[in-house]
Formats: sequence, structure tokens, C-alpha cells
Amino acid sequence: MTLFQGLSAFPITPADEAGIVDITALSAILERIAIEGVDSVGLLGSTGTYVYLTQEQRRRAIVSSAEVLSGHVPLMVGVGALRTSDAVLLARDAEAAGANGLLLAPVSYIPLSQDEVYRHFATVAAATSLPLCIYNNPAATHFQFSDDLLSRLAQVPNISAAKMPSPAKADVPEELQRLRPLMPATFKVGYSWDRRAADAVACGGDAWYSGMGGVLPAPIMKLCRAAQAGDTADVDRMNTVFAPLWDLCTSLGTVRVIYAIANATGLFEGHPPLPISPLSQDDRKTVLKAVNLLSAV
Amino acid sequence: MTLFQGLSAFPITPADEAGIVDITALSAILERIAIEGVDSVGLLGSTGTYVYLTQEQRRRAIVSSAEVLSGHVPLMVGVGALRTSDAVLLARDAEAAGANGLLLAPVSYIPLSQDEVYRHFATVAAATSLPLCIYNNPAATHFQFSDDLLSRLAQVPNISAAKMPSPAKADVPEELQRLRPLMPATFKVGYSWDRRAADAVACGGDAWYSGMGGVLPAPIMKLCRAAQAGDTADVDRMNTVFAPLWDLCTSLGTVRVIYAIANATGLFEGHPPLPISPLSQDDRKTVLKAVNLLSAV
Repeated sequence: MTLFQGLSAFPITPADEAGIVDITALSAILERIAIEGVDSVGLLGSTGTYVYLTQEQRRRAIVSSAEVLSGHVPLMVGVGALRTSDAVLLARDAEAAGANGLLLAPVSYIPLSQDEVYRHFATVAAATSLPLCIYNNPAATHFQFSDDLLSRLAQVPNISAAKMPSPAKADVPEELQRLRPLMPATFKVGYSWDRRAADAVACGGDAWYSGMGGVLPAPIMKLCRAAQAGDTADVDRMNTVFAPLWDLCTSLGTVRVIYAIANATGLFEGHPPLPISPLSQDDRKTVLKAVNLLSAV
Repeated sequence: MTLFQGLSAFPITPADEAGIVDITALSAILERIAIEGVDSVGLLGSTGTYVYLTQEQRRRAIVSSAEVLSGHVPLMVGVGALRTSDAVLLARDAEAAGANGLLLAPVSYIPLSQDEVYRHFATVAAATSLPLCIYNNPAATHFQFSDDLLSRLAQVPNISAAKMPSPAKADVPEELQRLRPLMPATFKVGYSWDRRAADAVACGGDAWYSGMGGVLPAPIMKLCRAAQAGDTADVDRMNTVFAPLWDLCTSLGTVRVIYAIANATGLFEGHPPLPISPLSQDDRKTVLKAVNLLSAV
């Protein structure tokens, strides 16, 4: 079982302007990811614009993805929602459709306490028999998990992994030494934020949760495998090749860059949900130049 | 027309655990607010948990509120949504139901640029003939409006007002002197954050957008009228009486405090949407003590 380990590729969820998911485009994107031998797919993550889609559209995406991937690649599904009751319904939908794991972010509008997030996660985890990954993404959710909360959640049955924001390379060993003793031995600690995650895996992280892996699975897989092998010289070399793309993700926003790549590579003709806007023609050209450099990976 | 001026009271939106709005309780809450002579009602604001409710439930709340208030109190309706397409639909719903104005927050998950928010607001403003108030609430939306963006939005037809987070009392005159010349003369600049908003009105702000005004309209109206009259000594005196309640809003969260007051005063027996949790019995007692002090207002 490679869920919560190695490379988890996060596809966009192609949809029209009204938010109706394009199942044909989604299936093509997933098949392209699966061919590269990724360790899992993370459907309906932040790159998959999960909070922008209705429950019905999320259900449609889950059902078709489970069909495409069934028996080939483990499928993890983001079930984050503002209401606990909605997250429970989404978790049950995912299990019924054949998902292999859940990803849950503490989505909030009114700021939540540590105890409120504990109860939210425990309730969702108890709603199905699927293993659940804690989606720790303060840049999007504005919620900060304390170490104590992560430790308490790691004791909850079904809560099996965490997706952490990658710290600076130098801080990864300290973070893992701090967190591992707080968790059961089987608990997996993986990382997101593509520009730093390969370093985090090379330093002992269990998984790389990658938005760019959903649209450029081949070069991202090479980088991930080097990181898993602990080949830091090759990781550094490849990250230098990726650097212009990472810089554009920082300056333009990762999701906008990923949609531009999906457009340019013929994966999907549409755009992210407005008000998130497609990149200008000039920015698209700059992105494509950065992508073309990746032939050297 | 007292929309965007004076006291705008923001009710909770009573609902059950599945998010079905309790129309009977909502109507009773609105009637109690209307009796106090507030200048407008702000339905489906942050206190009204708008982002936690489906479009269908928001529609139900709008229709019944317009019926209750029709001809008595101007009704402003929050139409914020992550997708521009959803905010447009909600704005049209509000107009069709008889709302008098719209309130729009730049709700985001993936961070938005200033230009993206401009286009979002311009699109929603063009979807109806209703005047629209910019909901500037960085604590909840995590979006920072630049002065330039506020100025550009103030030129858009239908965009008529802004609801700003109250700065410290000493900074209000500077803020108003900075903003007023950037806006058309008819543009209204009002304030939220109950513990500071009376001071902001006393210093020249056009409106107080008050969550506490939805559950304690009588003492909040007294404080607002003193502020509008520029009676800063009386504002200071009353704010001293309110201080324990303001402190509890800061430490426990305003929405949790307001639900506890709604419970204690018989307005609504239910709770905020989980994962937002009701206060403990001890905290409820402390809140009630602070409310009882308000007889001295």
C-alpha cells in the first residue's frame, strides 16, 4: 500500500464556468498521471479547487476517478468542508465510490480553536473505515496545528498521516525528530509545497504531496525518486532546473501556473474558477519557457 | 434611506445541525431588532454564518426576512461566495426577494490579487440594480484591500459603501481623511468590530455594522445614537459598561458569545454550525454576567 508514501500527484479538477466537472478531461489527466507510476493520486486537494465545487460535483469527480484508477493507483480524496456535517457526507461519498483514503483540511471562516478542530477531525474519521490524512496547509486554511493537536489526532483510529507544509531544508530533520515520537510508529509524515518538498523527502519525510505532479508527473517523479533514494546531489541538480518554475509559482500563484501548463499541454482548455483568473499571455510564455527547461531533469 | 448609515444590526441565522434555516426563529429575531428602530438589517453577514449555508438556505432566509422587514427597515444581504458565478446568483436572488442592498466580501481560499477582487466586485455589482457595500473583513477573509482598490471600486456604478474594520480610535480621523477624497461624495464609509465601532462613528464614520446589535439591539442602539451625536463622553461611559462583554468577544470569539446570548434570552435554542462549538456552561455564566451589566447603559 503506497498511500501516504512516495509521490502523491494532485490533479486539477477541470470544470466549466458554472463549476460542472468535465469528466472526460479529468479521466485523461488521471490516466496520464497513472502511467508515470505515481504512488497515489490526491483528488480534490487545493490544486483540485475542492472548496469551489458543490458536493454533487465533487461526488461526480470521485466516482469517475475511482473508476479510472481502480486497482492501479491508490486514490485519496479531499473531503474538507466548512461544516462538519458536510465533511462527513463527503467522506461517506468517497468511501462508497471506492476511494482508498481521505484528506481533510480544517477549512474555516470564523477562526477555530484546537479543540474544535480535534472534534471535527475525530467526527469525520469515525464516519468511514478509510484511513485519513491531516491536511495541514495554513497558507490556505489559516489554521495553525499545535504539536499537541497533531499528536492527539494521530491517536484517533483511522487518522494515519499528515500532509505538512515543508519547512526550510535545514529545519526538516528537527521537525521530524520532534514529531515522530509524538505519533504512533505507523503514522506517516509527508510534505507539500513543491519547491521544498523533495528536500523534505530526502531528509526523511514519507511523502511528497504535489500539485505540479498532477500536470507534470514525469519530471516530478524523477525528482521524487532521487529524494527517496537520498541522492541529495541529484535533488539539488534537478531543483536548480526547476527553480524558474518554482519562482513563477511563488510570484503568480501555483494554481494559476498549473492551469496554464494544463492549457499549453492540451490537458484542459478551461480556466480556474473565477475570481481566480487565468494568466496573461506574457506570463504564459514565461511559464512555458520554464517548463521547457525541464527536459534537462 | 438609512441603508449604509447609522446602526446596521446583523442577526444570527438560526439553523439546525444540517444547516436548515429556522424561519420562525429568524423572523422573531428580526422583529425584535426592527422594534428598536435600527437603521438597517445586515442579513447573512459573518455573524449570520453566510458561508456555512447552502444557496438554497440563504435564499429561504432572504425571502422570509424581506417579508418580515418589508417597508419598515432597509434590508442588506450578504452575497459573498468563493465563486463569482455563485455570488452573482445570490445577488439576483436577493434582488428578486426584495432586498434593498447587497454586502459582498472577497471570500477566498486560494489568495486573490487586487485585480481579481476588482473584477469579482464589478461583475456582482453589474448583476443587479441594488447598491452594494464592500465587506472589508481581513480577519475572516484574509484579503487586504489597498486604498487604490477601494477607490477604483467606489467608482463602479452600484458600489456605494464600504464596511471597514475599525482602527484604533486615534487612527479613525486619519483614515477617513485619507479615504474620503478617494471616493465619490455620496460614498459611505462605515465600521465593524463592535468594541471599536462606536468610537469610529463618533469620529465621523457613517455606519456601525454590528453583530451584537442583532442580539442586543436596545443597548447597542443607545451607544450608536450617542456616537452619532458626537457625545464622546457618553460613548466612553457606555463602552466602559460594555467592556467585559467586549473582552469576552475577544477571548471566546464574537459568534460563540452571540449564540450564547441568543440561547439565554430565548431567541434561539440551537447552536452555531459545527465545528464552531457552543460555549461551556461556565463561559455562558460569565457572558450572562457581562450582559446583565448592560442595564447601566
